[in-house]
Amino acid sequence: MRPRMTTRSPLAPDSFPALPDIAGVTLRVARARYKDWDRCDLTYVELAPGTTVAGVFTRNICCSSEVELGRAQIKQGVGRALIVNAGNSNAFTGYRGREAVEQIMEQVAGHLGCDASEVFVSSTGVIGVPLPKDKARAGVEAALTAEPCSWEAAAETICTTDTFAKGSTARAIVGGTTVQVAGIVKGSGMIAPDMATMLGYIFTDATVTPALLQELLSEATSGSFNSITVDSDTSTSDTVLLFATGKAGNPPLVTRDDPGADALYAAIREVALDLAHQVVRDGEGASKFIEVQVAGATSDNSARRVALSIANSPLVKTAIAGEDANWGRVVMAVGKAGEPADRDRLAIRFGDHWVAKDGLPVDGYDEAPVAAHLKGQDIRVGADLGLGDGRATVWTCDLTHGYISINADYRS
Amino acid sequence: MRPRMTTRSPLAPDSFPALPDIAGVTLRVARARYKDWDRCDLTYVELAPGTTVAGVFTRNICCSSEVELGRAQIKQGVGRALIVNAGNSNAFTGYRGREAVEQIMEQVAGHLGCDASEVFVSSTGVIGVPLPKDKARAGVEAALTAEPCSWEAAAETICTTDTFAKGSTARAIVGGTTVQVAGIVKGSGMIAPDMATMLGYIFTDATVTPALLQELLSEATSGSFNSITVDSDTSTSDTVLLFATGKAGNPPLVTRDDPGADALYAAIREVALDLAHQVVRDGEGASKFIEVQVAGATSDNSARRVALSIANSPLVKTAIAGEDANWGRVVMAVGKAGEPADRDRLAIRFGDHWVAKDGLPVDGYDEAPVAAHLKGQDIRVGADLGLGDGRATVWTCDLTHGYISINADYRS
Repeated sequence: MRPRMTTRSPLAPDSFPALPDIAGVTLRVARARYKDWDRCDLTYVELAPGTTVAGVFTRNICCSSEVELGRAQIKQGVGRALIVNAGNSNAFTGYRGREAVEQIMEQVAGHLGCDASEVFVSSTGVIGVPLPKDKARAGVEAALTAEPCSWEAAAETICTTDTFAKGSTARAIVGGTTVQVAGIVKGSGMIAPDMATMLGYIFTDATVTPALLQELLSEATSGSFNSITVDSDTSTSDTVLLFATGKAGNPPLVTRDDPGADALYAAIREVALDLAHQVVRDGEGASKFIEVQVAGATSDNSARRVALSIANSPLVKTAIAGEDANWGRVVMAVGKAGEPADRDRLAIRFGDHWVAKDGLPVDGYDEAPVAAHLKGQDIRVGADLGLGDGRATVWTCDLTHGYISINADYRS
Repeated sequence: MRPRMTTRSPLAPDSFPALPDIAGVTLRVARARYKDWDRCDLTYVELAPGTTVAGVFTRNICCSSEVELGRAQIKQGVGRALIVNAGNSNAFTGYRGREAVEQIMEQVAGHLGCDASEVFVSSTGVIGVPLPKDKARAGVEAALTAEPCSWEAAAETICTTDTFAKGSTARAIVGGTTVQVAGIVKGSGMIAPDMATMLGYIFTDATVTPALLQELLSEATSGSFNSITVDSDTSTSDTVLLFATGKAGNPPLVTRDDPGADALYAAIREVALDLAHQVVRDGEGASKFIEVQVAGATSDNSARRVALSIANSPLVKTAIAGEDANWGRVVMAVGKAGEPADRDRLAIRFGDHWVAKDGLPVDGYDEAPVAAHLKGQDIRVGADLGLGDGRATVWTCDLTHGYISINADYRS
């Protein structure tokens, strides 16, 4: 594994944001030394009794035991603790990997006096090596008794090949009470070297039932974490968990129609979107952040598939890396998506500059403003299919020599 | 457009193969100067009266007028001529592009005294610029009266960003008569810079009805041209045409059960597969030729989708470029394919060396022979899903700095 955070992404924010304390959330980190390194690599988040939890997980069939167990645990809707191991994804390790996760769950449950099913575990890093039980046991032991730490320390500890720690916060007024939302995420590609993956954790002190919490998370995820792509490769460990400690004292939120549910949703969505964008900004080798907007599709789902076809096209991504207004490649990506489209109604733009309309280059096309837009770091690509009202936005980064260097010039 | 054939692919064959004359096929080339270059860029193939034709075309919805017209013409099943323009794909050019194609068809038809619908046209190169009618007219005029040329000259003339000219041949015994099959192809990616694309032309002197010819071509294409991928980007102009001049004197082949039909199919398939492999060997930036074999799937189609998921994964392709036995990335690609799979039955191999079985790394895994295999130029990746009898093979190349250099360090 490469030393982490060596060369900070050119798209990284200036610094880690100031995240508020969330009542009922205590962060601790420790050294399990899953790899031959001297850094904290085990994160322990203690959650107050009564904390509700929602989760979304990778759809990759070859998922890790952590994902399998988490998917089952989430049905109970309550959580007392989260453990995140960095440096070993524990994926494709069979029963031995599963035993290691169960050991961690029992160890933490024994300490907190809760049920093992209330302890959530994630792991990220090398694949095919069962998580070493002895290192996990000693690491958890150290973490359980460690001094509480900052959000930034926790955000750094869950990272593997990320080049910067990622956090975000927002707040909402629920029934006259201000509630806080804070989240951290790791990821630098759907998959980074050694199969590091995207893991995200969002916390709020709001009081929310598990069912509504799941509804809010699923909805927020679809327009954020599920709308980003670095390299089209879906990891085996992707996980996003949302915990609500209920310490803010707001009137409990039970349904989407309750006053304040919309405000909380907006705050959760803001944090999820910010964190998702930060993952793209740390995309392997990224030099440009790209927003792809598709309109005029026959449905939102159709628009989304067309947008992903554009965002995942190696030729579109390399053209943008080269600051080349090669809109023909966008046309190609629209056409290969397998969705309803009509070549002779299609319009393409870079930034706000239309380059093609009705299946033809625009009359008197002036490349100068388009070229100027492409020289920036934040690129917008638009396609209007001219068929209906379906629309979608996805985010990606460009494909550069940096991606090849990270993934090919590296030996496991 | 880059100067062509500057740096020959390291995977290229030593030389262009010796292709036999095919009775009823006459090749000519000329300079239309579609770009600012001094090379032949217009190919004219004259076909004897009575020649039957079959074709397969891109499924990209944003296809060129050439593809639209060709798809309609092929239904008649007869062809007297083929024109291939290099340097301008004429795609996304609306009615002006279509007019240029129709002009070429009429000009050649006037010369041969045939119907315009018997003249097939393909174009490859820059997108969004209508094929200039004046250059096309002069180029066709020169070609119609040029001296016949060699297969190699024709194979070079249809190229754009290819680094070597590609041809292949095979023969078959049909009803006691030896029939010849010869083909040429261009392509260096599903899409090369400026949207150059894959165009393939196969010729035989066999006598075959159009319906059977189409059946043979479709079947041969599915296991050859439709089973290769360089970068997952499907072009707007992909076309493969198969012409049968009927000059060999064999008893006419009408159905798949006729004696000799299997032999002719085998010869066509051999040429198609060889040409398809040559396209991959000229894949942009390729340093390794990769065969992906999937077995044990619930169906052949399912196996094919899993194989393409592996072959199109940027992380698998970069790992192989880096000679890294990162089988976890193959597991990830199997799992993300969306096809039936069971993590705990999955087995993965490189070459003939199994690295994982039953959802676990193999006991006593020895990386040395795997590493040795990965140092070669011809790499084989295998996945056995352990579920059924479905199997498929696809071919691709690795993803290297060369791909980025060609596609990102280049300005249109």
